[in-house]
Amino acid sequence: MLAAAASLLNIDVVVLDVGEHTPAKQVVAPRAPSLAHIDGSFADSVKIRKLASKVDVLTVEIEHVDVGVLEEIEGKVPLGVHPSPFTIKTIQDKFVQKEHLRASGCPVSDFLPVESTVEAVKEAAERLGLPLMLKSRTLAYDGRGNFVVRDLKQAQEAITALGNRPLYAEKWVSFVKEIAVMVVRSREGEVISYPVVETVHKENICHLVFAPLRSRDPSIAERARTVAENAVKTLQGAGVFGVEMFLMADGSVYLNEIAPRPHNSGHYTIEACETSQYENHLRAILSLPLGSPALKVPSACMLNILGASSSMDEIREFAQFSLTVPGARVHLYGKSDCRKGRKMGHITLVADSDAELSKRLRPLLEHLPGGHDPKELELYAPLFPERGFSHRQPVVGVIMGSDSDLPTMLPAADILNHFKIPYELTIVSAHRTPDRLVEYARSAASRGLRVIIAGAGGRCSFACIVQMPRGIPVATVAINNGTNAGLLAVRILSAGQPHLVTAMDDYLKTLEKEVLAKVDKITEIGWDAYESARKARSG
Amino acid sequence: MLAAAASLLNIDVVVLDVGEHTPAKQVVAPRAPSLAHIDGSFADSVKIRKLASKVDVLTVEIEHVDVGVLEEIEGKVPLGVHPSPFTIKTIQDKFVQKEHLRASGCPVSDFLPVESTVEAVKEAAERLGLPLMLKSRTLAYDGRGNFVVRDLKQAQEAITALGNRPLYAEKWVSFVKEIAVMVVRSREGEVISYPVVETVHKENICHLVFAPLRSRDPSIAERARTVAENAVKTLQGAGVFGVEMFLMADGSVYLNEIAPRPHNSGHYTIEACETSQYENHLRAILSLPLGSPALKVPSACMLNILGASSSMDEIREFAQFSLTVPGARVHLYGKSDCRKGRKMGHITLVADSDAELSKRLRPLLEHLPGGHDPKELELYAPLFPERGFSHRQPVVGVIMGSDSDLPTMLPAADILNHFKIPYELTIVSAHRTPDRLVEYARSAASRGLRVIIAGAGGRCSFACIVQMPRGIPVATVAINNGTNAGLLAVRILSAGQPHLVTAMDDYLKTLEKEVLAKVDKITEIGWDAYESARKARSG
Repeated sequence: MLAAAASLLNIDVVVLDVGEHTPAKQVVAPRAPSLAHIDGSFADSVKIRKLASKVDVLTVEIEHVDVGVLEEIEGKVPLGVHPSPFTIKTIQDKFVQKEHLRASGCPVSDFLPVESTVEAVKEAAERLGLPLMLKSRTLAYDGRGNFVVRDLKQAQEAITALGNRPLYAEKWVSFVKEIAVMVVRSREGEVISYPVVETVHKENICHLVFAPLRSRDPSIAERARTVAENAVKTLQGAGVFGVEMFLMADGSVYLNEIAPRPHNSGHYTIEACETSQYENHLRAILSLPLGSPALKVPSACMLNILGASSSMDEIREFAQFSLTVPGARVHLYGKSDCRKGRKMGHITLVADSDAELSKRLRPLLEHLPGGHDPKELELYAPLFPERGFSHRQPVVGVIMGSDSDLPTMLPAADILNHFKIPYELTIVSAHRTPDRLVEYARSAASRGLRVIIAGAGGRCSFACIVQMPRGIPVATVAINNGTNAGLLAVRILSAGQPHLVTAMDDYLKTLEKEVLAKVDKITEIGWDAYESARKARSG
Repeated sequence: MLAAAASLLNIDVVVLDVGEHTPAKQVVAPRAPSLAHIDGSFADSVKIRKLASKVDVLTVEIEHVDVGVLEEIEGKVPLGVHPSPFTIKTIQDKFVQKEHLRASGCPVSDFLPVESTVEAVKEAAERLGLPLMLKSRTLAYDGRGNFVVRDLKQAQEAITALGNRPLYAEKWVSFVKEIAVMVVRSREGEVISYPVVETVHKENICHLVFAPLRSRDPSIAERARTVAENAVKTLQGAGVFGVEMFLMADGSVYLNEIAPRPHNSGHYTIEACETSQYENHLRAILSLPLGSPALKVPSACMLNILGASSSMDEIREFAQFSLTVPGARVHLYGKSDCRKGRKMGHITLVADSDAELSKRLRPLLEHLPGGHDPKELELYAPLFPERGFSHRQPVVGVIMGSDSDLPTMLPAADILNHFKIPYELTIVSAHRTPDRLVEYARSAASRGLRVIIAGAGGRCSFACIVQMPRGIPVATVAINNGTNAGLLAVRILSAGQPHLVTAMDDYLKTLEKEVLAKVDKITEIGWDAYESARKARSG
């Protein structure tokens, strides 16, 4: 993906990897013999030196490299090595990384170094509690290298599973969500960040990424970006950094880990943002102006395509199925072999609302190679609820002060049903539930609501609302006309969802037809007969 | 671009082109010797046969190919040749193309075959009038092969300029805009189309493409798509077709030409649509499900990067400059030499409104290699107007029944100025200019308006509007409070432009601060002194 971004800018890329037809090499045919790729391991110092001799800038897409060689060649590559060897060294040992972050004042959970003995694990559990997160300090990737010790009887199992490598233990963080921010740092030290995303892991491997993060607390997004940017500022070198964090129930944020490179949680940026993480990585390391990280679509997600077995056919069939889903773009990586848990590609989905995104995501989850967990469908891709219940991802809130307003407000819900708009309907009383009202208003935008239809009883409301003070605009739609409130909500939404303009046109044409049919009827049967029939109908 | 789309789907591509490092060959490194590219001309029958022997499906990206060979091999390639040789043959001779379209009932302007003599050109001019569009029947591309004869004295010059090739003449079409639609046809005959775009040519070469088309007449888009789809249905074979049309002042549409392949007017689809024209071309010729052609951004344009001279540096510098523009994605094609008029790459721009797009486009036009025409800046990238004048690309319309409403409505304009929202302000009276009112309402959405703030004088309006009939929702914001009307418009827009949510938060925080400052002041100086000072201020 980095190579594809480079080709759009006519930047030549030389790839060091084992094999002749590795994914990156498939999309970069060297334009001259001097740009020929190198067949070798990124751990092979001879090959790294050879690569360094051919390029103006050297960048690394995996942190498990030989830092000694990078330090040695750093001064010899005209534009340097990015991320800097210092940063890679700090990050590739997770215990050193955590110490660095804690020393720099970043919010991290408590942690300890641990010897690879049952005794040491027990001691760590005494200090940090159970469950205990036991991790390899090095060579961890895609969930390999993590073990959750829930019972001390698992201590030996954990040590063995982690391959007897150097370990450390982290206090278990009972997060409500995992979140991530891609941060870009230029060679000149400018730091910008992408929107906060929610990441979902399955068996410790990234499974889903949702952008942007929705939350009840509107301050979380800015806070998480600040934490992520500050963490990256403590490191050196240019490029993109993937910052993974934990979001706690009280709204606080813990740093988990930093990846000093384009990251799986930023793949969605290719289709969903004004500049992709890959292009911004190139811009950063080449001293080109950094690009806007803004989302260009209302809602996006990324679904990894993981091998379920060694079968390539399963992957192909799934990729082909995904072509039936609107807004899906498939990225297959051109890997030659498939195996369980291997990242074979991903799908980016875009949509004009979270609810539409869910609708598109659901069949993809259902068809995933290796099957799916029905619970995850309900969590991450809920269906439109049955009539009479609120959607979990509403864009419209229909609220009223009392259940006695229901008869007035239900016609608004009927209209929203008609236009398939996801909405919630509930009671929020300014006088009887003032705290709830404040929380509802404050969280509305960050939860994804775009329109609130508020029903107010009592004569006074009408005169009040049209005389709201300057600065606080509220519009009165109608007295006893929930239908029109629903229709106005649809019209407001159409400012951001152009297909609703067409849907509204169709609706109005139906109304027009109904009236014109009445015109014909009056002409046909005369107005006396017509009025008698009308009276009889309206009972 | 087709090869890049193929690589995302792990589809192997073999390229026939002259040279080893041509643009497509740079991004497809064959995964096996049998997939090696072919070095040769697309007019060389031996090379075409060689290509055909290596592939499951053969597609053509330029229509000036040897159709005889394609016909011969058509049955031998498992999934056939697309577009079909019949279609290429029909299209590569523009006179035959026009005859085919006219015979199929497609709307084309009058045309005649013309011998390459001054006498014949004169005769054609007598029948079709001046100016006369004289065209080569074959081998025309990027404006080469067209000559506008404005005066019969130019007849010999035209014949010479067109290289003494077979000619035909077209009746001059005095269009108001050139428009285009990309149409996709599957092997099974399913036909879908992309949004209508406006195309702008400079010296007969595509210069700019704007998506979607804005027009006063809301029916044009659907009509143009129908014309384009019907034209493609008269042809054979699968793939993407670029249909170029003329839009007349009366709203009618003429077909100009059809390109049986991905087309310059569809490049914008890579960043702006749910499925790119390239991916849909592949899907069509491979019997994969066609992808959604819907726009995923509110506004997009494409700017070609044309060589201004033989200087590559000019191109590089311009590409680098474009990285400073938010929403711009550069595509350089990796061509080895530059020359005047050669397509070296393009830039896709996306934005959340036409006005924002213009703001982004303007510096790009100003920095184009080879300079620019100041008139084109005003036409295609107008600045925000001075205070007190309407924007040419408004998203809000502020209208009032009479100029006496101005004092009430100007505060709404002030708010829109504050939030940098493009708007227009004008008089539309339901009673005194009823036709204008109808036209204004009908054209609002297709012109790009998302909100209308209507000021109504007279006591009655208030009671009327809250009692509008069911089906016709209009909201009353306030009595004598244009500020709140402006603010509500901003809130409505924020349903589709999330950055306005943040801007509105900042505005409300300022209001809050102002009130809190007053709280402090009252505490500090006491309410008697405070009230005296307030009275003195408000005069």
